[in-house]
Amino acid sequence: MWLLPVYSALVAFVLVLAAGPVVIRFLVRLGTGQNVRDDGPQTHLKKAGTPSMGGIMILIPLALAAIIVSPTKEILPYMLFVTLGFGLVGLVDDFLKVVRGRSLGLRARDKLLGQILVGAVAILFVLSRPDLGSSVFVPLAGTRLSLPKWLYFVFAELVLIATSNAVNLTDGLDGLAAGSMTATAISYVAITALLGSWELAVFAGALAGACLGFSWFNAPPAQVFMGDTGSLALGGALGTMALLTKTELFLPILGGLYLVEALSVILQVISFQLTGKRIFRMSPLHHHFELAGWAEPKVAARFTLASVLCGVLGLLAFVYTFF
Amino acid sequence: MWLLPVYSALVAFVLVLAAGPVVIRFLVRLGTGQNVRDDGPQTHLKKAGTPSMGGIMILIPLALAAIIVSPTKEILPYMLFVTLGFGLVGLVDDFLKVVRGRSLGLRARDKLLGQILVGAVAILFVLSRPDLGSSVFVPLAGTRLSLPKWLYFVFAELVLIATSNAVNLTDGLDGLAAGSMTATAISYVAITALLGSWELAVFAGALAGACLGFSWFNAPPAQVFMGDTGSLALGGALGTMALLTKTELFLPILGGLYLVEALSVILQVISFQLTGKRIFRMSPLHHHFELAGWAEPKVAARFTLASVLCGVLGLLAFVYTFF
Repeated sequence: MWLLPVYSALVAFVLVLAAGPVVIRFLVRLGTGQNVRDDGPQTHLKKAGTPSMGGIMILIPLALAAIIVSPTKEILPYMLFVTLGFGLVGLVDDFLKVVRGRSLGLRARDKLLGQILVGAVAILFVLSRPDLGSSVFVPLAGTRLSLPKWLYFVFAELVLIATSNAVNLTDGLDGLAAGSMTATAISYVAITALLGSWELAVFAGALAGACLGFSWFNAPPAQVFMGDTGSLALGGALGTMALLTKTELFLPILGGLYLVEALSVILQVISFQLTGKRIFRMSPLHHHFELAGWAEPKVAARFTLASVLCGVLGLLAFVYTFF
Repeated sequence: MWLLPVYSALVAFVLVLAAGPVVIRFLVRLGTGQNVRDDGPQTHLKKAGTPSMGGIMILIPLALAAIIVSPTKEILPYMLFVTLGFGLVGLVDDFLKVVRGRSLGLRARDKLLGQILVGAVAILFVLSRPDLGSSVFVPLAGTRLSLPKWLYFVFAELVLIATSNAVNLTDGLDGLAAGSMTATAISYVAITALLGSWELAVFAGALAGACLGFSWFNAPPAQVFMGDTGSLALGGALGTMALLTKTELFLPILGGLYLVEALSVILQVISFQLTGKRIFRMSPLHHHFELAGWAEPKVAARFTLASVLCGVLGLLAFVYTFF
């Protein structure tokens, strides 16, 4: 059984590599050259023209690999529903950017509504399962914290919105989001395997393989960006894996990098509105270090290393809690 | 037990990060600015001035982490002897380059002699152990191929010389050797854990952590190179892990990247001498792709991905053979 996630990773990896050149040509023809955020670092303006929406070459191989390799299909459909659903929200967002030719896509309200509706399906499934339900594991204590169903619903929606938008914010340097998510996914392979949840282990393996394959094309200088199609889906996948394993409260460790990136944006905004001063040279945090003089591939490498470390620490926290 | 390699990886990683800035300052003051090979790609000439010999900030943390974490010390001393011994040969080589101010260090003959003498200690230990001895596992067949002792000795020396020099050749792009060896080391964590050889699993974990930590400073644009100090030691470590687990014949898969890099040099030389024509634009192979127009960090990322794939395939071959 424990080889299954290795297989799904290999299948997803090979599918992404095979699909890559065709998909990239298609995206270029579609005119998805990313409209780079005009308030980002100056050095990033040269990225205009690199096709976006590359997330589709992560998501389809990921789904195929998981479906092919998974021994049973009990939880997997919900896992895939949220991942692909969030991807679809991102796709609409990316597509509107292409059509409108600006760095703006879906309105924030519409995006959020899409995420909430898609997420609700998985959360209702979690609530309907007696072995999952409305409780969450408490790190290190090992006890289950039971929540009222309505409160868990709200909490779970917040988890999904937070993870998807945090990964979305992290996706700002060549190779960063795909590399970081590879590490996070590998940690979830270990966690789900330890729980004996092989469908999720297969999914997490496919996620790692697909992200690794995407890095082939996304490594600096990137030939393609994942866009919101990719980053919202990857973040949604991360949140859903947490919901389906009741490891929601381990996310601040496992996804520490995404948390810090998101916090940097929140703190920057709060500080600017309250005091008129900025805490960071630019947010999200990776741009701060770029403007401090670290070269882009170096920031991406170091942030990815930080994500590896978060993954290892999260896994250790999980093991300490339950073994 | 299976958490031990995670601990040694964490310890090594943290030690490298802590030691890095001090060691780099010291190497700069020592004047180890690498004399870049003057027959390499033009774009690499700007690397002159980056300190070399960074291998010492891999090797000392690696040794400390392995010694601290390892539960017993039966095989570990031999593992460390070869790793540090090859590192010492590389250190002398690097040091002579500094003193002589040229891209030339030890004579090839002297380097080889050093490697043979250091390697002999570990090989004699292997031969003296009834559970190891002069046989090697045959991939997929699962049988042990028994060799006469003298033949195994020669074969084992060739393994060590091949791995150390192949990793040495691979070390030509920012982040490449450290990233690739991280993947290879993680595969060996799995292999040695499956064999129940926890001392070696701890060593392999520390190796992965130390290489990952080194990547923090070695990611493009590199602030430090590992030099022969690092690459000969890492290659020697890889060969010795194979000898001590009798997985010598799995090396062409597990270390497929290093094999291909070394073969590219050998084929290039043979072709040029026989026909006067070159097969590759430049060897080792990574320079070929650079001259074909791939940016340096992209070649490094893709070759590292190839090494991850080799590691996974090697691990699968091992599992198929024995489980």
